[in-house]
Amino acid sequence: MTTNQFEHKLHEFKQYLQKMKSYEEAIGLIYWDMRTGAPKKGIATRSEVVGVLSGEHFKMSVASEMGEWLDYFSEPEQDARLNRVERKIVAECKKDYDRSKRIPPQKYQDYVVLTSQSESVWEEAKHNSNYAIFQPYLEKIVATNLEFIDLWGYQGHKYNTLLDMYEPGMTVAKLDQVFGALREKVVPLLSAIQASKHKPETGFLKQTFDKEQQKKFSLFILGQMGYDFDAGRLDETVHPFATGLNPGDVRITTRYLLDDVNSALFGTIHEGGHALYEQNISPDLIGTPLCTGTSMGIHESQSRFWENMIGRSRPFWNRYYQDVQKHYPGQFDSVRVEDFYRATNEVKPSLIRIEADELTYNLHIMVRYEIEKELFSESVRVADLPEVWNEKYRDYLGIAPTTNGEGVLQDVHWSGGAFGYFPSYALGNMYAAQMMRTIRKELPDFDGLLEAGNLIPIKEWLSEKVYRHGKLLTPTEIITEVTGEELNPDYLVDYFQEKYGDIYKL
Amino acid sequence: MTTNQFEHKLHEFKQYLQKMKSYEEAIGLIYWDMRTGAPKKGIATRSEVVGVLSGEHFKMSVASEMGEWLDYFSEPEQDARLNRVERKIVAECKKDYDRSKRIPPQKYQDYVVLTSQSESVWEEAKHNSNYAIFQPYLEKIVATNLEFIDLWGYQGHKYNTLLDMYEPGMTVAKLDQVFGALREKVVPLLSAIQASKHKPETGFLKQTFDKEQQKKFSLFILGQMGYDFDAGRLDETVHPFATGLNPGDVRITTRYLLDDVNSALFGTIHEGGHALYEQNISPDLIGTPLCTGTSMGIHESQSRFWENMIGRSRPFWNRYYQDVQKHYPGQFDSVRVEDFYRATNEVKPSLIRIEADELTYNLHIMVRYEIEKELFSESVRVADLPEVWNEKYRDYLGIAPTTNGEGVLQDVHWSGGAFGYFPSYALGNMYAAQMMRTIRKELPDFDGLLEAGNLIPIKEWLSEKVYRHGKLLTPTEIITEVTGEELNPDYLVDYFQEKYGDIYKL
Repeated sequence: MTTNQFEHKLHEFKQYLQKMKSYEEAIGLIYWDMRTGAPKKGIATRSEVVGVLSGEHFKMSVASEMGEWLDYFSEPEQDARLNRVERKIVAECKKDYDRSKRIPPQKYQDYVVLTSQSESVWEEAKHNSNYAIFQPYLEKIVATNLEFIDLWGYQGHKYNTLLDMYEPGMTVAKLDQVFGALREKVVPLLSAIQASKHKPETGFLKQTFDKEQQKKFSLFILGQMGYDFDAGRLDETVHPFATGLNPGDVRITTRYLLDDVNSALFGTIHEGGHALYEQNISPDLIGTPLCTGTSMGIHESQSRFWENMIGRSRPFWNRYYQDVQKHYPGQFDSVRVEDFYRATNEVKPSLIRIEADELTYNLHIMVRYEIEKELFSESVRVADLPEVWNEKYRDYLGIAPTTNGEGVLQDVHWSGGAFGYFPSYALGNMYAAQMMRTIRKELPDFDGLLEAGNLIPIKEWLSEKVYRHGKLLTPTEIITEVTGEELNPDYLVDYFQEKYGDIYKL
Repeated sequence: MTTNQFEHKLHEFKQYLQKMKSYEEAIGLIYWDMRTGAPKKGIATRSEVVGVLSGEHFKMSVASEMGEWLDYFSEPEQDARLNRVERKIVAECKKDYDRSKRIPPQKYQDYVVLTSQSESVWEEAKHNSNYAIFQPYLEKIVATNLEFIDLWGYQGHKYNTLLDMYEPGMTVAKLDQVFGALREKVVPLLSAIQASKHKPETGFLKQTFDKEQQKKFSLFILGQMGYDFDAGRLDETVHPFATGLNPGDVRITTRYLLDDVNSALFGTIHEGGHALYEQNISPDLIGTPLCTGTSMGIHESQSRFWENMIGRSRPFWNRYYQDVQKHYPGQFDSVRVEDFYRATNEVKPSLIRIEADELTYNLHIMVRYEIEKELFSESVRVADLPEVWNEKYRDYLGIAPTTNGEGVLQDVHWSGGAFGYFPSYALGNMYAAQMMRTIRKELPDFDGLLEAGNLIPIKEWLSEKVYRHGKLLTPTEIITEVTGEELNPDYLVDYFQEKYGDIYKL
């Protein structure tokens, strides 16, 4: 009888979770649609639809049934009957449930309204470089997050609680260590690069490039990466993204700049990396909360692995540069593959994170990390952020913005309350370099595969080691099982030193 | 206090309805996506999402709260406080609620599964012209509908209950009368046309036409009609349709045949007519069950008005033929506008409804109407349908199919249980002709507007008279208020006689 009861409850619980996943999928499709071409006059009503579906989803996540199931399956007797996947599902749901339940519903509702208004205000503030109109919103958002942290609880630094939302297990102590080590090597490397007389020529990247050809080339490269077009599609958008609605429907968007051959290309490879992850999650996990990437950092490691470690590598271009030449006839006749390779790897401190090169990108992240850490230790005031921002840019990158629009207001994240998210980007670079080291050992002729345009074994290796697990393994388990050690920034440093030492003849 | 209670209940009721509408909108978007390019490997999971959302929507429509609200607002005291829109909303909900509540949930669930399976079986049956595999499904569907009719109740003919679902208030008695009158004039007219020596030349319609140009021309004509591209978009699909997600987001799909210049064009105008209806429903009705067309027949009257009364008229082509010539350079050099006009109005009995001309189309509908009527008076057996079908085609159109694929199996409707739907198409033609008579009186230089390419006053007239009301008025109210009399088939007959008398010199 108790076995029957157990089985029955487990079945009901799984159906409930599948239903929640259905809501997420519907919401995901609506967002994709809003960003790829939904008619603007329908947006107001469509936003209400999102509100209804999100509301139902949230209600389900904190419903009393959910609490009862979690209590039941956490009893030692029942827990012992769960298999590994089921146990992880219960743990994930419990984490979400506990987090959501601690926030009074009205406070949460107010916060949703606040961040939604704040995003519109931020847009205007950025457009007019007017920090003053955004400041009161940001102050409220930070204050509310501090209240939430008190309700959720924290260990060590308050900011740890926020970091954990995007990178389970990540802490200030760990980030201080890895970012410190990284900065220590990146800053002198950047100085050496800036002092080098062997700078790449980049003018030929800035011609006018036919949009249809850019699209064809993007599709071609996605096909080479093993992106499954029966389980996805490529569309245009303003801010590119990838979205995994289910492993059979993982969509990519990109943006074509007519005067820049590389923007859409590397954007597509980047989102393609995210998409390969989502397309190759084990079908066993479909309909469960484990059917997604394990963390933002690991997800970003995959987009950056494909974009940078593969897409900006010499052997890759030894194979594919001929296709650039074919897609843009006459436009690269006098450009050698080596020139193209060096140009795509130009390092140059700049003000805008999303336009930064592979090396300085990490410094942009560290600036934001330092500021967030100080915000949540309450050692910096929101009012002072523009000044703090500019100072840190001078300190980390040697340049500073002249307007807040290209400074403290450049990113959308804070307006939506996404504190703790930025470090994922730099973590992704470190995870990627560390995995690169391992993959080179396990696929010994790695460069040969790239030179031959045979990328599929690489996709399969990553599927086996990373993608298929979805959220079944933690980020730490993934990186440890794949590479044999925990996160170690040295691999990224080594990769940078080798790559740029060669390009800039240091 | 009771006023407060009334206001409070009314507010809650409206919010509830808006929530139901949100589910409908989400489901509508998912269907649009599935038919315009959703990756095929994601469809299985997406279908579960549709199942979850439809299930929630159905639950809400029969929930006890709904019953309580309907009882409350039906009390004379409360009813007196409702405004006209609110009263109609209550009536609409009550109609749906009563219909849904009378079917035992398990029976309804079984029926959903049956029709869903049946649609797949039908596809195979049609493909292989194999009626035998479809027959048992159709038998069950008819039998279940007969059971449902007994549960719902009926007045006069059992088929009336089905007709009412698509055309509120329509009956067998009325249809027998109008279809009888129509047939009586259409059949001799068709004979005269077939005997005419002045048949149009049509060969030039069947060249090869560039798809991009077809698309451009479709978009151009939609713009001329006053279709609002900020409240819609045009996409490609296999079976064209229009879908009104909300009045700010009404999407059209079309299909481009490379060897037929008219298929996409008239398909687009047809769906454009449906879309104008949905785009111009009064914003006051958004979020209520009245925010949709009043019936299938009135909806179809608008698609057919634009497709046929305008799109296949001489003054229209006097203005727009130059654009055909421009879009397909050199392909119509030797074709005069009069030849083009006559070719687009060729009348020729054929086997396939969706390829039929404007005149014989109605005969295709009458065949189906007669069969459905007999099925629900139980005077014909499902097993005999292929024979009955072929006999009626000989009788009505003078030709008969040689396979069931191009005969009784050609339409999807019956496999999904949509009995009572077909008459809407012919009703649409009759409503359209009747409105045409009125609009010619009220916009005296109607032909002049077409000749000048000034279609907007026509769209505005229809918006004012038909579109803005949504489902607030019944089909009978609409046609009576617009034209001053009830449905009258004579206007369609007059229109046919005048048009074809001229073209075929009868």
